[in-house]
Amino acid sequence: MLVGEGDKTTMQIVITGGAGFLGARLARTLLKRGELSLAGAPLRAISRITLVDRAAPPADLAADPRISAALGDLNEQLASPDASLWTGADAIFHLAAAVSGECEADFDLGMRSNFAATHALLEKARTVGTRPLLVFASSLAVFGDSPEQPLPPVIEDHTLPTPQTSYGIQKFIGEQLMADYTRKGFVRGRSVRLMTVSVRPGRPNGAASGFFSGMIREPLAGIRAACPVPDETPVAIASPARTVEGILRAAQASDAEWGPRTALNLPSLSTTVGEMAAALERVAGKAATDLLDRTPDPAIQRIVKTWPGRIETVRANRLGLSADASFEAVIRDYVRENPDAVKLVIAA
Amino acid sequence: MLVGEGDKTTMQIVITGGAGFLGARLARTLLKRGELSLAGAPLRAISRITLVDRAAPPADLAADPRISAALGDLNEQLASPDASLWTGADAIFHLAAAVSGECEADFDLGMRSNFAATHALLEKARTVGTRPLLVFASSLAVFGDSPEQPLPPVIEDHTLPTPQTSYGIQKFIGEQLMADYTRKGFVRGRSVRLMTVSVRPGRPNGAASGFFSGMIREPLAGIRAACPVPDETPVAIASPARTVEGILRAAQASDAEWGPRTALNLPSLSTTVGEMAAALERVAGKAATDLLDRTPDPAIQRIVKTWPGRIETVRANRLGLSADASFEAVIRDYVRENPDAVKLVIAA
Repeated sequence: MLVGEGDKTTMQIVITGGAGFLGARLARTLLKRGELSLAGAPLRAISRITLVDRAAPPADLAADPRISAALGDLNEQLASPDASLWTGADAIFHLAAAVSGECEADFDLGMRSNFAATHALLEKARTVGTRPLLVFASSLAVFGDSPEQPLPPVIEDHTLPTPQTSYGIQKFIGEQLMADYTRKGFVRGRSVRLMTVSVRPGRPNGAASGFFSGMIREPLAGIRAACPVPDETPVAIASPARTVEGILRAAQASDAEWGPRTALNLPSLSTTVGEMAAALERVAGKAATDLLDRTPDPAIQRIVKTWPGRIETVRANRLGLSADASFEAVIRDYVRENPDAVKLVIAA
Repeated sequence: MLVGEGDKTTMQIVITGGAGFLGARLARTLLKRGELSLAGAPLRAISRITLVDRAAPPADLAADPRISAALGDLNEQLASPDASLWTGADAIFHLAAAVSGECEADFDLGMRSNFAATHALLEKARTVGTRPLLVFASSLAVFGDSPEQPLPPVIEDHTLPTPQTSYGIQKFIGEQLMADYTRKGFVRGRSVRLMTVSVRPGRPNGAASGFFSGMIREPLAGIRAACPVPDETPVAIASPARTVEGILRAAQASDAEWGPRTALNLPSLSTTVGEMAAALERVAGKAATDLLDRTPDPAIQRIVKTWPGRIETVRANRLGLSADASFEAVIRDYVRENPDAVKLVIAA
């Protein structure tokens, strides 16, 4: 039972990184539903969603009276003695992060934005004392293949993460903090490992995995795009819709359904860069794949090749979560959802 | 190759927790050898060992001209802008820690002494820029059994740690930081997971595992001792000698011998509390075991029962490390090394 849950009929939600692509999509999904069940408790109407981000919320979100924006740097907001941002929060979705490529290029940035911020957020939630439900977006990047310690061919729920990037280490440490702050009763934490999300709309970011979206999104818009790794590169993909579904399921599952405090691997579609390009060609023709620039990028290859391509998600499947049916279907979803960003489509 | 290694003929060593039982034993072993090979490099004479600790070094160590003491709180020493303590260090053994029982009772103490101090030490080593060899004493407490996530019957080198104590979480996070600071080239880190050390001489500490030593040490001295868990409780034991041997091997192994950056499970003798008591009786008679107070202690049981009893250490064995032959032999070693602390012995 949440503290004071019986007295409350409405719910307040905080999303860190709330103006980002996933945060905004999560907020839209929550607004559309209008209510949420936390950890198996009865549904409650969502009265407020606070988007914590350096960037302002997208216009459609800003226009909703239930949305409020807390503009600024997350670490600074957490360091502030004013805890009003957090005191009323029934649920916190912690999506804010520096991404993989950035963290590899700037170690201190990653330690600040991922390691220190996640710790500070947990301390803040502990200090506030309301024991919020806290969903932490970890990443498949906790799994890293290396010559000294090869990954098994198939990742399972109990596979030992051996991160090969600073981003992966920082996310894995965040999972450990989440587990102990939960065990101690300071928060009700659930960590979910997001897969490579594709197709992300909008602009490229600094993630090493960014091209997995760019190589679809840009050609669909008639723009050249980098595809800097070989065709046979394996990848574990989830669409934006499946990803948000996994994040929400983590908030909704009862403690018994959720099970251990270990992070949950979300389902993914196992595919390859070559198969993704083939799916793009089926949707948008050779004109689209002709726009792919196959110049190798060693820095990106070095990161991406450490990530696993095949992940068996028994635990997530038991929670009712499943992978996308095919990457072609994922592209068609993107085309349907982003009509203004698509120029090249040959078949419906 | 260590930075500047070719120019140096002597070696400076820092031991955090250097006045503690393991730190002092490690220092004595190093002084007796007089020289050390780091990571497969040629032997060099040990010119100085600095013991960082809140407590003063034992008299025998303080009398050695190669020993210097840095008295004080580790976190404060690391926060000091004066880095002279660390600048010349070729090797750092990071043994300082708050122990399991303390960390479970005082969350903030553990986060400060284990989580924050290990991070600060790595940052200090990074800032100093000499890329020291850094051995971190982790613990078998990273493995934790729970109803939601039972441990496998035998722990292997690649078993996923799911710590069930704050101490275990903090040690596991330390391992992750060590791995990434090493990968980035800031230090040459090696993490070793110490097993339950028994028989520790001296006074009891706040470790939940303390009774594994006390139940032998005190009866041998003719004093009553708590044995607060059932006979069948499994335990993975290593003697002080084997433990120091493992810590030193971590410093000596070449990168190729050491292998992955994952922490190394040190070898252990799988035994039970009942077998330990039986060994005590063989060494010191029924007069000794009659001194055992078998009153259960739920707080200690709760922690101890989450730890694994059987650990298969293929990787450590490949490094030439092995477990103690029997617990009776471990007790007889203790009797031989601590004649002044032993009153009850029936057979040699």
